[in-house]
Amino acid sequence: MNKQILVLQGPNLNLLGTREPNIYGIKRLEEIHREMVEYAAEFGLVLHFLQSNHEGSIIDAIQQAVGTYQAIIINAAAFTHYSVAIRDAISAVNIPTIEVHISNIYSREDFRNHSVIAPVVTGQITGFGSASYLLALQAANFIINQRDDN
Amino acid sequence: MNKQILVLQGPNLNLLGTREPNIYGIKRLEEIHREMVEYAAEFGLVLHFLQSNHEGSIIDAIQQAVGTYQAIIINAAAFTHYSVAIRDAISAVNIPTIEVHISNIYSREDFRNHSVIAPVVTGQITGFGSASYLLALQAANFIINQRDDN
Amino acid sequence: MNKQILVLQGPNLNLLGTREPNIYGIKRLEEIHREMVEYAAEFGLVLHFLQSNHEGSIIDAIQQAVGTYQAIIINAAAFTHYSVAIRDAISAVNIPTIEVHISNIYSREDFRNHSVIAPVVTGQITGFGSASYLLALQAANFIINQRDDN
Amino acid sequence: MNKQILVLQGPNLNLLGTREPNIYGIKRLEEIHREMVEYAAEFGLVLHFLQSNHEGSIIDAIQQAVGTYQAIIINAAAFTHYSVAIRDAISAVNIPTIEVHISNIYSREDFRNHSVIAPVVTGQITGFGSASYLLALQAANFIINQRDDN
Amino acid sequence: MNKQILVLQGPNLNLLGTREPNIYGIKRLEEIHREMVEYAAEFGLVLHFLQSNHEGSIIDAIQQAVGTYQAIIINAAAFTHYSVAIRDAISAVNIPTIEVHISNIYSREDFRNHSVIAPVVTGQITGFGSASYLLALQAANFIINQRDDN
Amino acid sequence: MNKQILVLQGPNLNLLGTREPNIYGIKRLEEIHREMVEYAAEFGLVLHFLQSNHEGSIIDAIQQAVGTYQAIIINAAAFTHYSVAIRDAISAVNIPTIEVHISNIYSREDFRNHSVIAPVVTGQITGFGSASYLLALQAANFIINQRDDN
Amino acid sequence: MNKQILVLQGPNLNLLGTREPNIYGIKRLEEIHREMVEYAAEFGLVLHFLQSNHEGSIIDAIQQAVGTYQAIIINAAAFTHYSVAIRDAISAVNIPTIEVHISNIYSREDFRNHSVIAPVVTGQITGFGSASYLLALQAANFIINQRDDN
Amino acid sequence: MNKQILVLQGPNLNLLGTREPNIYGIKRLEEIHREMVEYAAEFGLVLHFLQSNHEGSIIDAIQQAVGTYQAIIINAAAFTHYSVAIRDAISAVNIPTIEVHISNIYSREDFRNHSVIAPVVTGQITGFGSASYLLALQAANFIINQRDDN
Amino acid sequence: MNKQILVLQGPNLNLLGTREPNIYGIKRLEEIHREMVEYAAEFGLVLHFLQSNHEGSIIDAIQQAVGTYQAIIINAAAFTHYSVAIRDAISAVNIPTIEVHISNIYSREDFRNHSVIAPVVTGQITGFGSASYLLALQAANFIINQRDDN
Amino acid sequence: MNKQILVLQGPNLNLLGTREPNIYGIKRLEEIHREMVEYAAEFGLVLHFLQSNHEGSIIDAIQQAVGTYQAIIINAAAFTHYSVAIRDAISAVNIPTIEVHISNIYSREDFRNHSVIAPVVTGQITGFGSASYLLALQAANFIINQRDDN
Amino acid sequence: MNKQILVLQGPNLNLLGTREPNIYGIKRLEEIHREMVEYAAEFGLVLHFLQSNHEGSIIDAIQQAVGTYQAIIINAAAFTHYSVAIRDAISAVNIPTIEVHISNIYSREDFRNHSVIAPVVTGQITGFGSASYLLALQAANFIINQRDDN
Amino acid sequence: MNKQILVLQGPNLNLLGTREPNIYGIKRLEEIHREMVEYAAEFGLVLHFLQSNHEGSIIDAIQQAVGTYQAIIINAAAFTHYSVAIRDAISAVNIPTIEVHISNIYSREDFRNHSVIAPVVTGQITGFGSASYLLALQAANFIINQRDDN
Repeated sequence: MNKQILVLQGPNLNLLGTREPNIYGIKRLEEIHREMVEYAAEFGLVLHFLQSNHEGSIIDAIQQAVGTYQAIIINAAAFTHYSVAIRDAISAVNIPTIEVHISNIYSREDFRNHSVIAPVVTGQITGFGSASYLLALQAANFIINQRDDN
Repeated sequence: MNKQILVLQGPNLNLLGTREPNIYGIKRLEEIHREMVEYAAEFGLVLHFLQSNHEGSIIDAIQQAVGTYQAIIINAAAFTHYSVAIRDAISAVNIPTIEVHISNIYSREDFRNHSVIAPVVTGQITGFGSASYLLALQAANFIINQRDDN
Repeated sequence: MNKQILVLQGPNLNLLGTREPNIYGIKRLEEIHREMVEYAAEFGLVLHFLQSNHEGSIIDAIQQAVGTYQAIIINAAAFTHYSVAIRDAISAVNIPTIEVHISNIYSREDFRNHSVIAPVVTGQITGFGSASYLLALQAANFIINQRDDN
Repeated sequence: MNKQILVLQGPNLNLLGTREPNIYGIKRLEEIHREMVEYAAEFGLVLHFLQSNHEGSIIDAIQQAVGTYQAIIINAAAFTHYSVAIRDAISAVNIPTIEVHISNIYSREDFRNHSVIAPVVTGQITGFGSASYLLALQAANFIINQRDDN
Repeated sequence: MNKQILVLQGPNLNLLGTREPNIYGIKRLEEIHREMVEYAAEFGLVLHFLQSNHEGSIIDAIQQAVGTYQAIIINAAAFTHYSVAIRDAISAVNIPTIEVHISNIYSREDFRNHSVIAPVVTGQITGFGSASYLLALQAANFIINQRDDN
Repeated sequence: MNKQILVLQGPNLNLLGTREPNIYGIKRLEEIHREMVEYAAEFGLVLHFLQSNHEGSIIDAIQQAVGTYQAIIINAAAFTHYSVAIRDAISAVNIPTIEVHISNIYSREDFRNHSVIAPVVTGQITGFGSASYLLALQAANFIINQRDDN
Repeated sequence: MNKQILVLQGPNLNLLGTREPNIYGIKRLEEIHREMVEYAAEFGLVLHFLQSNHEGSIIDAIQQAVGTYQAIIINAAAFTHYSVAIRDAISAVNIPTIEVHISNIYSREDFRNHSVIAPVVTGQITGFGSASYLLALQAANFIINQRDDN
Repeated sequence: MNKQILVLQGPNLNLLGTREPNIYGIKRLEEIHREMVEYAAEFGLVLHFLQSNHEGSIIDAIQQAVGTYQAIIINAAAFTHYSVAIRDAISAVNIPTIEVHISNIYSREDFRNHSVIAPVVTGQITGFGSASYLLALQAANFIINQRDDN
Repeated sequence: MNKQILVLQGPNLNLLGTREPNIYGIKRLEEIHREMVEYAAEFGLVLHFLQSNHEGSIIDAIQQAVGTYQAIIINAAAFTHYSVAIRDAISAVNIPTIEVHISNIYSREDFRNHSVIAPVVTGQITGFGSASYLLALQAANFIINQRDDN
Repeated sequence: MNKQILVLQGPNLNLLGTREPNIYGIKRLEEIHREMVEYAAEFGLVLHFLQSNHEGSIIDAIQQAVGTYQAIIINAAAFTHYSVAIRDAISAVNIPTIEVHISNIYSREDFRNHSVIAPVVTGQITGFGSASYLLALQAANFIINQRDDN
Repeated sequence: MNKQILVLQGPNLNLLGTREPNIYGIKRLEEIHREMVEYAAEFGLVLHFLQSNHEGSIIDAIQQAVGTYQAIIINAAAFTHYSVAIRDAISAVNIPTIEVHISNIYSREDFRNHSVIAPVVTGQITGFGSASYLLALQAANFIINQRDDN
Repeated sequence: MNKQILVLQGPNLNLLGTREPNIYGIKRLEEIHREMVEYAAEFGLVLHFLQSNHEGSIIDAIQQAVGTYQAIIINAAAFTHYSVAIRDAISAVNIPTIEVHISNIYSREDFRNHSVIAPVVTGQITGFGSASYLLALQAANFIINQRDDN
């Protein structure tokens, strides 16, 4: 039976490819999602995507993930830096969660150096461009298959 | 022809498996390295390892990596938080560098939330236990093969 | 004639009972609401409930409370710590507002020690578990009946 | 058998009614105490009062409360903001303790926004004028009768 | 052909005229909008208005402005102080954006002194009461007509 | 009868056009003043200009403005960030004062994000290049004609 | 009829003359008091002295001063830097209060640069050695005789 | 032979009497100076006055005081809070200097709580209205006559 | 002739053995004192003990120690973190003083990491449980016998 | 059988006796070590010494102490203030560790007030000159012999 | 043809030799200037000097240096720490500028550790007494002759 | 007889010429050293060079300089910002020490604005490219020949 992964994309990520391409790259969100689906297939993972500019919708999705998804991959984008509500949602549900960033948030503006959700996720992958998402899938696979045994 | 990766392990990582296993897991460093070699083989990557408690030795190794290694994977451990000299070495050589942490450094003591090397590495992978290293290898593979095209 | 109270529950409070029960207790939100209704009846207070993970919905509700409700009881949950917009809504409407917290927010993480809405509410009740809500009803009763005459 | 509650009033509260009435109201401390006695009677609670301008006397009283009182209600007034010694006394004795403030300390000077005793009390009630004390009695009643079961 | 301007009004601005009139004035939002329309007509500018208490709706509107509007005028109200997501939306779309405030945000509470969107807008106009909006229209006109040639 | 406006230009603004033109534009101060005179004529405003590198001279001018000028437009340049003396002069005289900046001071160095005079001026216009001055004239006109009626 | 002044001396001031004479001078407290009595006589002021190492005793004295004393002169010594309780006592009673320091507290350790009572006293005199007390008497005289008419 | 005192008045003090009289009183600077002359006569002190809005002029005056004046009385007004240059002038010349403030600078805005010259003056008198100047004369008299012998 | 040592125990230390024994151990204060007496006898030291919850009483005791005691051993407990008055008392008397803590104050809450008395004591011993007191006696012995000759 | 203690001396301690003798005393390191050996003999403790200016060598020594030494005495000197790597080494090995300082680090420069290793050592002894080392031996003896039974 | 250098001396430097000679040395400004002229002659540099206590005069001089001087040597003295206006003047003109300090500003008071002009000068020379000026001449010579070729 | 100077080069300086040439220039370390030798010859100074990436080796070298070298020139590179151990070594030996930086450290990242060794060196030269070293030699010459006589 396939494992299901919820992929959450935060505000403005629907503009990927056109938005500040020197920082975020030239791939559009659909291309990234297509690559992810392809890559996930190797691990037998099925992906479901949600992009939203609404904090509440992301919280709703996290809450409803219980019982359906084995892992969450989240790029909270701007919400990363202030949404305590998303943080609380992640720690309220008991699902392994992987935080992803396309750009290296530690080499940008000061306020982007701090993630309020980082303390409650399983792990964080940041700075590898769109490949960050593929690494997150690999990480999800490790977690689900308990290969990460320490 | 095989690609070569330099794997640098910072201070006290030689104690892995015995050191605070609730935080760092029960695998010894050699086991992790063995798993890495095995995993790297899938990508045709050859690994070279250096663990040192001496900041200067890690800097020497980074400098000497030029011309030999296609990527560096570094878990700078405690040096992560104050070694500007390692940071400068990383930005001085022109080699893709991946920062790795076993534990989620963002859910620990305040002083561990800040990495002085993060702004100059390619990307950071943190919190996946020993699997962080395997993800770093995957990341190195992406970078070397230019699959990360944005 | 009965007095009407608007009870606003912020993000993730719909998960009460299952969410980190060591912190938030094991009662589900409906049970708390049922107890509140029962307790409010003693004072002749009628309660209306809204739980939302959407900041905007909570603001809308506060604005629409004008003319209908004699008091607002609000547990803004995570929004407590950054929603200046909820704060502004509270100070814009002229309705006595009671801030409630289930856990003692002052004995938790640093960022939970600060409430951006506290300066504009009538009073705050924190740390008494689900009983915080009953105390808030009692407080609302005092305020409405002008028993608090200094 | 009646339950006994120790009510501790910190420095300058003996001046209530005359001291900055726009902030603290016009009721004198004795009136508040009289109202409290009356209100407590409904719950079968017996109250003992101590007002002191001496930090040491308040600490002595907290220590001697062990074995006699089922709960402590404390308005530490100015000591709220720096008396680590009162904080330590509260955490040393094993008695439910309720922190009370007449004014909303969060809408006043910055230094009044921080309570050093808040992290060690059961809960805090602030901003309801003299009604804060009645709510504290209600809270004490809830705690003693275990009605707060989460 | 007429130029189109998107006018975005953040949370609680729908209460203008009734909300703290000593700070925000006595004009209702519709009156301000009517004056703006009249004033804009002089410049041949057509205005479209959106007021929302929902951060996500404002982000959606900014994104959808591409291709339709020549400029955005935004009073982000409370969101000014924490919505990194609105900031990111503004820098993601390539439309001149003018930040407006009715009151002088620099003579109010400390937390209102800082705008997270200011660094990415074209310019800011603050403190002129409802005339701030008319000045913003004038500014939009300057920008669109390239009269600001340095 | 014409209204008189005092236009104060702080240190180094006499170098406009040659000084860091990528930040401050290529117009020389005289050109800006000429455009202002022209634009002011539409409103029947008469302008008087003073540029000085001497803080004391600017203070003297502000003091002497009483009784002669209906409004002050000031670009305090570097003094913006530390001259409490100019701030005090502005709040000492009872003349509407408009703070102007050519560049967006909020997208530059940290120390330029803070204006010590902003809390005491009527309003601030920043970031519109030399058009900031024209907007300030428009603002002065609104203020003098009481069109800003909230 | 003579005017009465309460002179309060905080902790360790009973050691004056022997305690760090390079900072506090070589005069003993009694000598200072004798000089004060003599100097006060010129103004027809009668002085009452209290030195205490007990914060509570100083608060008691301030409270009991109401109705008897026309002014308070206080050198709160170490309490200056943290006793919010003494601060509250001073603002609770309606008696002109003059804060005195023998040494220049602004040229000493950082923590001595901040007085928690300064914001609520009438005025402060610091750094003139034992003459600070005589100046305080002079100041008390001015205040009582309303010679300070602005 | 008469002793000479230099009285330095910082920026905007020439507006005393008209400037924010609720803070600074209604006496004009000349009246204060006249009272000072009268009061100084009792001690045989001759006064020379300089008011300037120019920091440099105040520094010049301090430097030229050497050899002529036995003491300096300075109300540096706004310069108090940032003029390190005036501070350095005071410590460069070897003349007893008394810092004066009309209002209680510790009960006003935060930035007025800090005096950069306080660490290098003999003593500070603050908060007594125009009487602060008379106390400063008294202080100067004490210092010159060596009555302050500790 | 025997040497005399004053042993001062701050607030709540009378509760040792019952108070948070995981932090402070299970020995009661009397047991610790008995062990100290026994241990001190080896060095010919005579001990006098004072425990108080009153800051003023501890200050009184320090002042009165002059002429009688050769050294002071003080565990100021909670006062450690804010009593500038005890600090001043210690630096006012000329007696070698040893600061003692049972627990390691550096591995506890942030506010316990800072001792306001540490800068004025001879030395500090912290973290050795009740043995800290015996080490303090040993230290006192070294100091009194001048064995510490550098 | 004798107990073995590892004594680690950090950077520049090899210069003791000549280095800033007013702070560190006039005894050379060998003399201190000789006194330690002599004093340790009374307790049947055997000492091994290592002084190094190399952080890595100190970490190596701590790691290799496992299985050989019953306790570590460390004066990390300058490393005290930034070597997170030494801190991690101490917490990685399971050996009682005593932090020693010759001077009172709390009465020196600000940056010397903070020890990054203090939170993970058993206890700290500071300020007793070279006697600090003897007290550390005494402390080691207490710890090894379990005399510290709380 | 000779090269011309403008030497700017900030406030209070005219007092050199008499002002705090333990910090600034015993040479008078003229002597330093005479030595500079002599030393400059070796390089064929012609010097022009301006000392002023007026910030505005220094700014005027920097502006007028354009076209006449090949380099500026500036000891801004106290202005170093707050004159953003001098900073802006330096970055506005396109002339190599060398910042000089007689004393080591990094070993003095905290506020002297920060230079607001340092980020915009070519280089800084500090701490060599009056020789700092000669080194600055040497530096100017290197810059003018392009010997500094990296 | 020739004077000897020790030239210490910190971590990564062996990469000069290849490392970030836009910041550090294109000269290799050997070229700089060759120029220094040549320039030093004019003053009769003999130079000895040590470059190391090991903090401990630099400390060892500083310690061993005693008795052999008349001055030390040090570019501590990254160690500048955190090596308290190097700072302590410099203040322990009694040798004039000159701190050098190639780039202007005050116009770079915030963490490079602070040198922990600056307070203990004789003087600092920063920002003149490789010429900084030649100026340091000139400075050493001044110091050794006592030409800096104030």
